[in-house]
Amino acid sequence: MTRLSTRIQTLTAGGNGWAVYYRAREMKAAGVPVLDLTIGEHDRRTDPAILEVMDASARGGNTGYAHLTGSPALRDTIAARVAARTGVPTTRDNVAVVPGGQFALFAALMAGIDPGDDVLFPDPYYTSYPGTVRSAGGRPVPVPARPEDGFQPRAADLLVACTGAARALLINSPNNPTGAVYSDAVLEGIARVARDRDLWVVSDEVYDTQCWTGPHRSLRSVPGMAERVLVAGSMSKSHAMTGSRIGWLIGPEAVIAGVSALANTTTYGPPGYIQDATLHALTLGEGFEAGVAAPFRRRRDLCLARIAGQQAVGVIPSGGAMYLMLDVRATGLSGVNFALQLLETKHVAVMPGESFGAAAAGHVRLALTLPDDDLLAALDTLLTFAQELSR
Amino acid sequence: MTRLSTRIQTLTAGGNGWAVYYRAREMKAAGVPVLDLTIGEHDRRTDPAILEVMDASARGGNTGYAHLTGSPALRDTIAARVAARTGVPTTRDNVAVVPGGQFALFAALMAGIDPGDDVLFPDPYYTSYPGTVRSAGGRPVPVPARPEDGFQPRAADLLVACTGAARALLINSPNNPTGAVYSDAVLEGIARVARDRDLWVVSDEVYDTQCWTGPHRSLRSVPGMAERVLVAGSMSKSHAMTGSRIGWLIGPEAVIAGVSALANTTTYGPPGYIQDATLHALTLGEGFEAGVAAPFRRRRDLCLARIAGQQAVGVIPSGGAMYLMLDVRATGLSGVNFALQLLETKHVAVMPGESFGAAAAGHVRLALTLPDDDLLAALDTLLTFAQELSR
Ligand SMILES: Cc1ncc(COP(=O)(O)O)c(C=O)c1O
Ligand SMILES: Cc1ncc(COP(=O)(O)O)c(C=O)c1O
Repeated sequence: MTRLSTRIQTLTAGGNGWAVYYRAREMKAAGVPVLDLTIGEHDRRTDPAILEVMDASARGGNTGYAHLTGSPALRDTIAARVAARTGVPTTRDNVAVVPGGQFALFAALMAGIDPGDDVLFPDPYYTSYPGTVRSAGGRPVPVPARPEDGFQPRAADLLVACTGAARALLINSPNNPTGAVYSDAVLEGIARVARDRDLWVVSDEVYDTQCWTGPHRSLRSVPGMAERVLVAGSMSKSHAMTGSRIGWLIGPEAVIAGVSALANTTTYGPPGYIQDATLHALTLGEGFEAGVAAPFRRRRDLCLARIAGQQAVGVIPSGGAMYLMLDVRATGLSGVNFALQLLETKHVAVMPGESFGAAAAGHVRLALTLPDDDLLAALDTLLTFAQELSR
Repeated sequence: MTRLSTRIQTLTAGGNGWAVYYRAREMKAAGVPVLDLTIGEHDRRTDPAILEVMDASARGGNTGYAHLTGSPALRDTIAARVAARTGVPTTRDNVAVVPGGQFALFAALMAGIDPGDDVLFPDPYYTSYPGTVRSAGGRPVPVPARPEDGFQPRAADLLVACTGAARALLINSPNNPTGAVYSDAVLEGIARVARDRDLWVVSDEVYDTQCWTGPHRSLRSVPGMAERVLVAGSMSKSHAMTGSRIGWLIGPEAVIAGVSALANTTTYGPPGYIQDATLHALTLGEGFEAGVAAPFRRRRDLCLARIAGQQAVGVIPSGGAMYLMLDVRATGLSGVNFALQLLETKHVAVMPGESFGAAAAGHVRLALTLPDDDLLAALDTLLTFAQELSR
């Protein structure tokens, strides 16, 4: 076999802690009743009303090549939604519909950076980030955020990490894995760094409908930032449409034109019938979206109440998303060892903090994606396990 | 706005002749009855039986994150299909299901080449090729094929164009735009060049079910080539599923593992319910596929009969795919001017050869994608127009 590209060989690098995830899958396949809190996906399926529109569209003949970056109607609807929620003027020329929020991140970096450029992002981070940066030819530069700051990034830390090669920041609020929602001060600090160093900011806002601290604040709405912020949005989390692979990138017209050219050399955009289903889903309104988000808020509150009664485990103040990050350093174990032992002895699976970067060492992430009773049973088991270790 | 990447700005470069395509769209939108032979897409929609399975899968709950590179069952089925049709041992580990044949091409280059490497391909070429190579960081090197060879590439020409930077060949048989089906001698010549220079060959075989010269011959079946050939396949043309965006890459296990890592940083793979629909479509068998292909063969024969009776226009011997390439050099016009004038004065739209590379100058491509009567009416108009010019 001839030689693989250097790039492709780097994509899988990293991934401390995924052993837990795979071991849990193995145990479940072998029939062990594992309570699995590793997976960031709703415990409900896509709404039948949305699937009905998809089917009608497909049977109606919308099965041919579709608009590469979304039908005009879909782009208009997304533009209006973004404008209404952020107050930033937005037209269809600022919107590229793409196959998923993850592809929006990739497309933003393909448009914004060249091979060899640095892309900075706060650590802990969503696990795809280093590979996504490498796919676009960039160098991933994780910048540690601190547990004592609730894992909110400090502008000063970002600034120090900016060498001449820095070309983009990649941020994520509400955050996976920490649940942190960046404060206004943090957003403004990030904006300052980006302006000072003339950087793009790729703002991953796929959890924008899961914000418990008040209305979601987009970095794009910080004055003067619309020209350098590229927002990744998605139907995955807001509408429980993870499997339909549809999202969007919001940005300046020239970026969107570039993403359209990229669609022409990669995916040709999402299927037309999925675009039609999405258009319908977006008319279901904020009430529908609140309904999809509600279980995660409720479960977060239930968990926080349960955690309040003990000292063995600390908790990061969570402001959004479908996760809760626990500090298990008092047990003396790493996140990886804590998670592995918890899985083997108690059959509860959680993600080690280390799978999300070095800054989350000694932590574990709970996905709030099991029915309430199962989730609380799993949490009780975890707390008891931690107490035994701390004694 | 901060600076766009150099790469993204190069993706739209080129594209002589697309003016005709856009002008035809404009005229149609203004109500002019254009006979449009520019578009490489069936005049039928996806079969309802396939859509029914898709709907049942989605309503049955397969709407969550799916297998990144295809379900085991789908990969097994594709592997068995490839093995049966090529005689080359193929397992699921040689198969990555991806969102469309176009993405398979992109993924193959991302896995095979590094920024700065040369990728050679015969000219005329499918219009996405230069941009696809650039998206993966490569330098596109079109190598002219000759009308007098029926646009079959010569190994000697490819060899001369191979500098030290050459890393991959990109070939396409049956060919868009020329309809050429590479002869065994041509395939073996390409294999020789690839082995001599240790190159990958990305073999675009999305028209493998539209081959009028006998069974399709895959480059992967040339002895010793399976380790360096990456085959792009697709449901688009074989099953009239263009809009569903599903295809595959066939290659060595290490390449497939790399493509899986790439899926994790880009698309997360095709939706699960589309994977299920595809699995069903593949059980419909060769009879179904022959039915989808039949109109293009019939229309090609009808057109060749019509063309045989005149001298104003020459024809490239077409062995497959849904196209026919005509030589209009005797009219004294470029392909672009011929197509533009034909469109403006006779309301027939064809693609200028120049949109597919310099080697196809003085030619036009007909897509055989209108009902027979419309197609023949358009062809008659074209022939009369050419005769008037040649007089
Ligand atoms: C932070 C973050 N960004 C992006 C994604 C990708 O989402 P999508 O399904 O829209 O591609 C996820 C999915 O888990 C995520 O957690
Ligand atoms: C030669 C060639 N390769 C690839 C493609 C892309 O096909 P898909 O729809 O599978 O992405 C096409 C589509 O027209 C084509 O003509």
